[in-house]
Amino acid sequence: MEIFDYILSLEKRAAAAVSEMSCASFAARNAVLSRLADALREGAASVLAANKVDLDAAAENGVAPQMLDRLALNDTRIEGMAASLEALAALPDAIGAEKVWTRESGIEIHERRVPLGVVAIIFEARPNVTLDAAALCIKTGNVAILRGGKEALHTSMAIRDIICDTLESCGLPRDGVLLVERTEREGANALMTIRGYVDVLIPRGGKGLIRNVVENAKVPVIETGAGNCHVYVEKSADFDMARRIILNAKVQRPSVCNAIESLLCDRAIAKEFLPLFAEDMRERGVEIRADANCIDCFKNAVLATEEDHYTEYNDLILSVKVVENVDEAIDHINTHGTRHSEAIVTRDDAAASRFTDRVDAAAVYVNTSTRFTDGGEFGYGAEIGISTQKLHARGPMGLAALTTVKYIVHSNGEVRK
Amino acid sequence: MEIFDYILSLEKRAAAAVSEMSCASFAARNAVLSRLADALREGAASVLAANKVDLDAAAENGVAPQMLDRLALNDTRIEGMAASLEALAALPDAIGAEKVWTRESGIEIHERRVPLGVVAIIFEARPNVTLDAAALCIKTGNVAILRGGKEALHTSMAIRDIICDTLESCGLPRDGVLLVERTEREGANALMTIRGYVDVLIPRGGKGLIRNVVENAKVPVIETGAGNCHVYVEKSADFDMARRIILNAKVQRPSVCNAIESLLCDRAIAKEFLPLFAEDMRERGVEIRADANCIDCFKNAVLATEEDHYTEYNDLILSVKVVENVDEAIDHINTHGTRHSEAIVTRDDAAASRFTDRVDAAAVYVNTSTRFTDGGEFGYGAEIGISTQKLHARGPMGLAALTTVKYIVHSNGEVRK
Repeated sequence: MEIFDYILSLEKRAAAAVSEMSCASFAARNAVLSRLADALREGAASVLAANKVDLDAAAENGVAPQMLDRLALNDTRIEGMAASLEALAALPDAIGAEKVWTRESGIEIHERRVPLGVVAIIFEARPNVTLDAAALCIKTGNVAILRGGKEALHTSMAIRDIICDTLESCGLPRDGVLLVERTEREGANALMTIRGYVDVLIPRGGKGLIRNVVENAKVPVIETGAGNCHVYVEKSADFDMARRIILNAKVQRPSVCNAIESLLCDRAIAKEFLPLFAEDMRERGVEIRADANCIDCFKNAVLATEEDHYTEYNDLILSVKVVENVDEAIDHINTHGTRHSEAIVTRDDAAASRFTDRVDAAAVYVNTSTRFTDGGEFGYGAEIGISTQKLHARGPMGLAALTTVKYIVHSNGEVRK
Repeated sequence: MEIFDYILSLEKRAAAAVSEMSCASFAARNAVLSRLADALREGAASVLAANKVDLDAAAENGVAPQMLDRLALNDTRIEGMAASLEALAALPDAIGAEKVWTRESGIEIHERRVPLGVVAIIFEARPNVTLDAAALCIKTGNVAILRGGKEALHTSMAIRDIICDTLESCGLPRDGVLLVERTEREGANALMTIRGYVDVLIPRGGKGLIRNVVENAKVPVIETGAGNCHVYVEKSADFDMARRIILNAKVQRPSVCNAIESLLCDRAIAKEFLPLFAEDMRERGVEIRADANCIDCFKNAVLATEEDHYTEYNDLILSVKVVENVDEAIDHINTHGTRHSEAIVTRDDAAASRFTDRVDAAAVYVNTSTRFTDGGEFGYGAEIGISTQKLHARGPMGLAALTTVKYIVHSNGEVRK
């Protein structure tokens, strides 16, 4: 079969399963998740055997150690995956709620929260995402089409088998979760471009994957994007607080999207604050790339280029710029940022309001680390990803991001005047 | 200037106006709309003069009468436009509301409703849409980039001048509303594909326009799609009610997206019901395209093809199919429909529930005409369009569809553990 026809056939199977999956009761969907946790524990040997096939092939092909680590499962990781299924089963329902109103025309309108339908997820070679993405879709009554990295295919197929057996044993369609088993690049392209079956496509992974999806998709996409985040130290800032926030936002986990890549500092305090900050960064081995207007405050800083201000390093590197005031900071962020997470440190309420009102980002922080942009930290229980787009979902996405509404209208034979 | 650079320059001007427009108070935004109503009445002569230029050119170029009618303004239409601005000014605010919660970590999260930012709208040669689209964006604190059909360009420019003068006289940026004055096709393509400035692109118009946008856009789009809508007459239906609903849904205004294109009828009542229905249709001049399983019920019906079941006629034509039961009706609709508006006529609550649960459409009606799918009928006051996609907005879109959220997080120096 041509790869296009193969993907189309999967999408048609998904469409045929939508009705049963979307009508499954809350109890039935949670029962699947609970049973799946047990089935995963019981089937751990088969999953680990498949994982060994993937790991051996990856090692032979010279896959990087970091990727091997993401690919590898063991008993502890499988128990963690099972426990997360049980936690998900305990979360409240994200579908079914209704808002009801009546109109003078005599119609009664029910705005009902419903599943999206068919959710396609493209991700890298991380077998835990296969389970996690399927579970989020089951929880919300959606049908999942999963397309993971080819290095994890055997592991994903073993996990998929357990999921589909569990769906069937709970009276739900096996096709509620579908795995793309053919990992040619053209398969991902077909998933992005065949219109009419996929209600949303979510890329989960690195920049290259997300850019490819956003540039080429003809189906609706939720972009889980890059984070070029800033901390701005306003002239009234408490220096100790500013240093603590910068350290946390830059150093705690530099590889993640809510870590900062840039420091902005008011000129009025630069000479006093930047040397203290420089010492913190030096101790933690953070490389500084500074603008000409502040490079003298650092011993070993590199001169920052305009390119630096657009770069998400995801590493122990930080660009530094001195600004005149809050408005220059806002302009710089709105020009160079990726609308993810931005912070101001200040004791001036007017400056804080101006910053939070005018910075265009999913999450804007006052005297708080940007690292809190996270579904768990926001209290959502589960996280689909962090959206950097504005349509449908913005910032940390909980289960609600996998839902839409449907209007159900009743009357006793009303017609439009 | 190359057309690409021209569009890019407009988008940069739009981006520069976002901050002021998004921070304008509710009173300021409404004041613009009220003053604009007056300015439009006062400036009617200039608008009508520009409109005459467009009309003369269109007549010379042999533009179809229907299009000329949509293009033409007169005092009555201008007064209608001014009155709709005053109605819009009276609607409640769609931005600014906050949901607030605190977390054990010590952070306080404000989920604030905010404008999308830059809203681009591509539409046909309808000068009233120029005003309407600009007004909806002003009401919601968005910056508008408007690209209308070239036949209405002079009229749109005259309206744009009044809008921008009014924005300026109210202390808001002139660039809050921008009109694309160069109407080459490549300009529309640039608007669809330049990423990073346009937060949402909304096509308003016919099928060709919408398909072009959906197929080619690389910026986020809200699809306001076609309506291939059905009425399904279930075997327990009240025949008089079914006939009244079908007449209204088919005949009252056949050119609109919430009119029906197809009738489904249970086999158990087909022989009794279809002749009554046939008489109604014959009286109103509706052409019937019937399946082989019911063509005998009609005197002059054409045999329906599979193509007919996928067609939105927007005309006095209706396809008819006999089905075994509610499940066959649901399957037929989910396969052939466009997820817009679907109706069941029934006295059986179980059949009604099965239909409303399983039909995948923005609006599903029980014993009610599909013609109610409309922002005004739903009570939204203003309507941006009717979305047939599931992300962000579904069905009739009120002002809320032009908004998103922003998270504003406060604490006293909290960092992530």
